[in-house]
Amino acid sequence: MKSLTEYFWFNTPEHRAYVNITDDVSKVVTKSGVQEGFVLVSAMHITAGVFVNDDEPGILEDIDNWLEELAPMGPDYQHHNTGETNADSHLKNILVGHQVIVPITNGQLDLGPWQQVFYAEFDGRRRKRLMMKVIGE
Amino acid sequence: MKSLTEYFWFNTPEHRAYVNITDDVSKVVTKSGVQEGFVLVSAMHITAGVFVNDDEPGILEDIDNWLEELAPMGPDYQHHNTGETNADSHLKNILVGHQVIVPITNGQLDLGPWQQVFYAEFDGRRRKRLMMKVIGE
Amino acid sequence: MKSLTEYFWFNTPEHRAYVNITDDVSKVVTKSGVQEGFVLVSAMHITAGVFVNDDEPGILEDIDNWLEELAPMGPDYQHHNTGETNADSHLKNILVGHQVIVPITNGQLDLGPWQQVFYAEFDGRRRKRLMMKVIGE
Repeated sequence: MKSLTEYFWFNTPEHRAYVNITDDVSKVVTKSGVQEGFVLVSAMHITAGVFVNDDEPGILEDIDNWLEELAPMGPDYQHHNTGETNADSHLKNILVGHQVIVPITNGQLDLGPWQQVFYAEFDGRRRKRLMMKVIGE
Repeated sequence: MKSLTEYFWFNTPEHRAYVNITDDVSKVVTKSGVQEGFVLVSAMHITAGVFVNDDEPGILEDIDNWLEELAPMGPDYQHHNTGETNADSHLKNILVGHQVIVPITNGQLDLGPWQQVFYAEFDGRRRKRLMMKVIGE
Repeated sequence: MKSLTEYFWFNTPEHRAYVNITDDVSKVVTKSGVQEGFVLVSAMHITAGVFVNDDEPGILEDIDNWLEELAPMGPDYQHHNTGETNADSHLKNILVGHQVIVPITNGQLDLGPWQQVFYAEFDGRRRKRLMMKVIGE
């Protein structure tokens, strides 16, 4: 079994942002030499997510509006008694999920035609880390 | 390490549908010969999901009603400026998730007594694809 | 490839509870001897979840309140025609997800500084099971 682990840093200028990282995932898989296996793409923070969807600006805006509607920023969270102000970012993380597995077949990402991998920043303007780990043969 | 990759096509007559695919997952695992490992079950579209729950008609109806409440169909999405009408299907996909891992132990799906694997169609009446990939030994 | 499968039982005194199981995951990984791989942490019930977030009492209370707001307990579910009363627990399971993968690097859980693994009980006061499966080398 082969494996490869790589870390990526983000520091988005926006408080919330959606970054297409599909090419980065693909490069890590190529570097690993794995032909058949899985690559885990996983945010290392509790205020960021990873998801697969369409790289179309309208839907990304819809997703952002919808997340804010279901898990709004605001003052009324118990977590804010600690001095934090980002409880909504934790909830958005839980809603979206913080990781996906991309299958690797014949050395390539085995994704559908519109599937793109996104890093979702829910509490930006600071350094955040993401990891990718390939296992397979 | 062994691996096996299989693709399945769906074309549901309903716009939204929930298809129990547990037997298909089980057959792929048997075919793979893997005794200890993982099978990834992953929708290849951004308007479909995969989840594990109970195969009870009432709860499936509850899940469908609840998804429509939290991510309703409607005209007011930016994605629809592209001519599409299915932004809600993308949001339902994000809410449910598009993949699960089923553990394989002693050559069998290692699921709890009521756990069944469902393909969730959120924008049917067209050909959609799902993949299963087994890795293990 | 090495693998190790372990099962854990829960029987929480509360109807809903959030149990930090990170140390248990870590012990299973150490026992497996795997240096590079994945550990799947997966609830075996359709009314329980597994997620990664911060072990801070305020945010756990926020998460619980938020889940109850988006997927409330109540009488108006089709599932309750079977005699069950826990449809909301199924919906909370779908919202949170029932499993996570923790990457293993150099024989350790490869988590970010605040990432902790939680078992989320949505229908407690009964025996429930969770499984962990390690694969890797």
